[in-house]
Amino acid sequence: MELIQGGVCAAKGFTANGIHCGIRKNHTKKDLALIKSKVPCAAAAVYTTNLVKGAPLIVTKRHLANGTAQAVIVNSGNANTCNAGGENVAEETCSLLAQALKLDPRDVVVASTGVIGQPLDLTPIRDGIPALAAGLSPAGGGDAAEAILTTDTVKKEVAVSFEIGGKTCVLGGMAKGSGMIHPNMATMLVFLTTDCAVSAAILQKALSKDVQKTFNMLSVDGDTSTNDMVTILANGLAGNEEISSEGDAFTVFMRALNTVTVHLCRMIAGDGEGATKLLTCKVTGAKDEETAKTAAKSVITSSLTKAAMFGADANWGRVICAIGYSGAAVDIHRIDIAFRSPAGTVAVCENGAGVPFSEEKAKAVLSEKEIDILVDLKDGGCQADAWGCDLTYDYVKINGDYRT
Amino acid sequence: MELIQGGVCAAKGFTANGIHCGIRKNHTKKDLALIKSKVPCAAAAVYTTNLVKGAPLIVTKRHLANGTAQAVIVNSGNANTCNAGGENVAEETCSLLAQALKLDPRDVVVASTGVIGQPLDLTPIRDGIPALAAGLSPAGGGDAAEAILTTDTVKKEVAVSFEIGGKTCVLGGMAKGSGMIHPNMATMLVFLTTDCAVSAAILQKALSKDVQKTFNMLSVDGDTSTNDMVTILANGLAGNEEISSEGDAFTVFMRALNTVTVHLCRMIAGDGEGATKLLTCKVTGAKDEETAKTAAKSVITSSLTKAAMFGADANWGRVICAIGYSGAAVDIHRIDIAFRSPAGTVAVCENGAGVPFSEEKAKAVLSEKEIDILVDLKDGGCQADAWGCDLTYDYVKINGDYRT
Repeated sequence: MELIQGGVCAAKGFTANGIHCGIRKNHTKKDLALIKSKVPCAAAAVYTTNLVKGAPLIVTKRHLANGTAQAVIVNSGNANTCNAGGENVAEETCSLLAQALKLDPRDVVVASTGVIGQPLDLTPIRDGIPALAAGLSPAGGGDAAEAILTTDTVKKEVAVSFEIGGKTCVLGGMAKGSGMIHPNMATMLVFLTTDCAVSAAILQKALSKDVQKTFNMLSVDGDTSTNDMVTILANGLAGNEEISSEGDAFTVFMRALNTVTVHLCRMIAGDGEGATKLLTCKVTGAKDEETAKTAAKSVITSSLTKAAMFGADANWGRVICAIGYSGAAVDIHRIDIAFRSPAGTVAVCENGAGVPFSEEKAKAVLSEKEIDILVDLKDGGCQADAWGCDLTYDYVKINGDYRT
Repeated sequence: MELIQGGVCAAKGFTANGIHCGIRKNHTKKDLALIKSKVPCAAAAVYTTNLVKGAPLIVTKRHLANGTAQAVIVNSGNANTCNAGGENVAEETCSLLAQALKLDPRDVVVASTGVIGQPLDLTPIRDGIPALAAGLSPAGGGDAAEAILTTDTVKKEVAVSFEIGGKTCVLGGMAKGSGMIHPNMATMLVFLTTDCAVSAAILQKALSKDVQKTFNMLSVDGDTSTNDMVTILANGLAGNEEISSEGDAFTVFMRALNTVTVHLCRMIAGDGEGATKLLTCKVTGAKDEETAKTAAKSVITSSLTKAAMFGADANWGRVICAIGYSGAAVDIHRIDIAFRSPAGTVAVCENGAGVPFSEEKAKAVLSEKEIDILVDLKDGGCQADAWGCDLTYDYVKINGDYRT
């Protein structure tokens, strides 16, 4: 298994494009993305658990009921959520695209991101689709990745190649993160593609299993979006025997999927709104995985811990406090805590009580861009990682005036 | 029932004091507070549900097992939590105070607030107790309220007078809030006193019932502290017949208690770390109270909503999003949302979809210091309030460098 260049077009038979069609007023910001497979794909998705669900999610869920799809269209600049007629706009978008690409509208996945509660005007989408479709290219993954961003500062793409039954397969993806990121079942707009042959049922199983350890362990601000969605398309062009049950091939596929999704999680967390640092809380020694996950997610969600990391302040009391209120059944008096970064490791708490440490060294460790918060519960053999970012002035600035 | 001047000394027979004893390095900041009743009191308390519990809470719980207390000692500057020997320091503090006041150490309540994980030096407390006890006065409530503050910017005191069986009773209190405020059972350091005669059992019942609607509906930053504690002392000096069961007198007492605790909640929320605005989310039309509480608390806890309120941005999508992920079983398509302040009311969402509104008026409404977020679920007759504050640059600043 190795990381390779590219994103949603890294796998065989996928083309993509991203353009500015006019949903956003700023002409320099792309706002419409398209991914297309040469052949129909097995498709799977997971969606937000928020009771408020964006209209595109409702339409996509309907279209993916048969487990196949061939194209994905995504707009940024408007979430098409909590407005009148949003579902019609999403369906019409799929129909217009299907016409341009000569597909069945039910083979189109649709997604939107942006402000909630405003009508989405179909006009720029209708006017933009011909150019969007005409520009499809195997080199268009980067433009698509750019067109789905909102307050993100960098494109998020990753791909991996792996071998199944002697055939080289590729799995790649792109993501949009930044704010309103605290997924519960999925996260804000992740699109994965693979040329690996996988049945729709097993694809759904793989994705549903993976997100529990990846996107559901990610938080920027504790707010679970209304439009979270992760989709994966598998077109089978790698030529491997279709994976249709659990077994060795499934295990390899799960590893490839997890490699890609963990990379995207880290990219989303590190590029969280206003973030200057990527935080990874690594909980080990848990009696079961659920305990490890609960504790790890609570730490990276704590506003106080996040602000302390921004200030490079080794205030570990906030870490143990967040574990204490997390709901995880842990023995506080066994917990060890350390901070780790490229500048070294500093132990700050042993058996639930503080130990002397060099403030100077701690400052150096916490001044790096990527920080691991290491928590050992010393109560078993299970572990979990969770990803987040620091809480900064810029997060407040961005969200104090998001709509203008 | 009427609001009167004062705090913990407003009720008959209570004296208090607050001094600088040297736990804090800053000589201008008081760090040791004392409340004393002339006679033994019925006493009740509620504590944090955080698995990490400050040593003073463990000691106080032990001392209140018999339902009586006569004095309360509180230090700021160090939470006496997650350190070695913290329980001994807390017990020793009670013993030293009991000696000075000629009380049984078990009649002393002890509490601490400040940084977690550092040893609490007994020396300044031992050296300070004589002056602390000597300075007890019916006018000392303000000094005590000052000595328990950490990053709070104002003292939090309130008192109310009411009548039971022809006797005038008084109930007053003081609180310390600011950061790490997201109580679950209680909140960070609230001390209530009353001269009303109430049995310990009924006092505990009243307090436990009240906190569900007051302190448990308050959040500054989503972090549940390790040292949350609300205590109430009732010395009976008002001369009313002791309230020892539910009934009319109990109802009046509950109203008095609620009036005081709601005031303290609003003061804590409005003075949250870095806060510029007090937010109240008022949920009405819920099918049951639990639904109303879950929705209201989710809204005032949402970082995105809090940042939008800081920026006076009427981004109501964040309000409905927070209701959607709260876990409350609501019909999203019935929800009405409006913002209200002294500058007026602006309706922004009806039946789950946006309605046109004047951005200018919304800006005026949201530029006030106290903002109500009105949510009507139109699904029943139950309601709940929750209190919070905006998320500001100063919250990040304060918590990026808390320990220095």
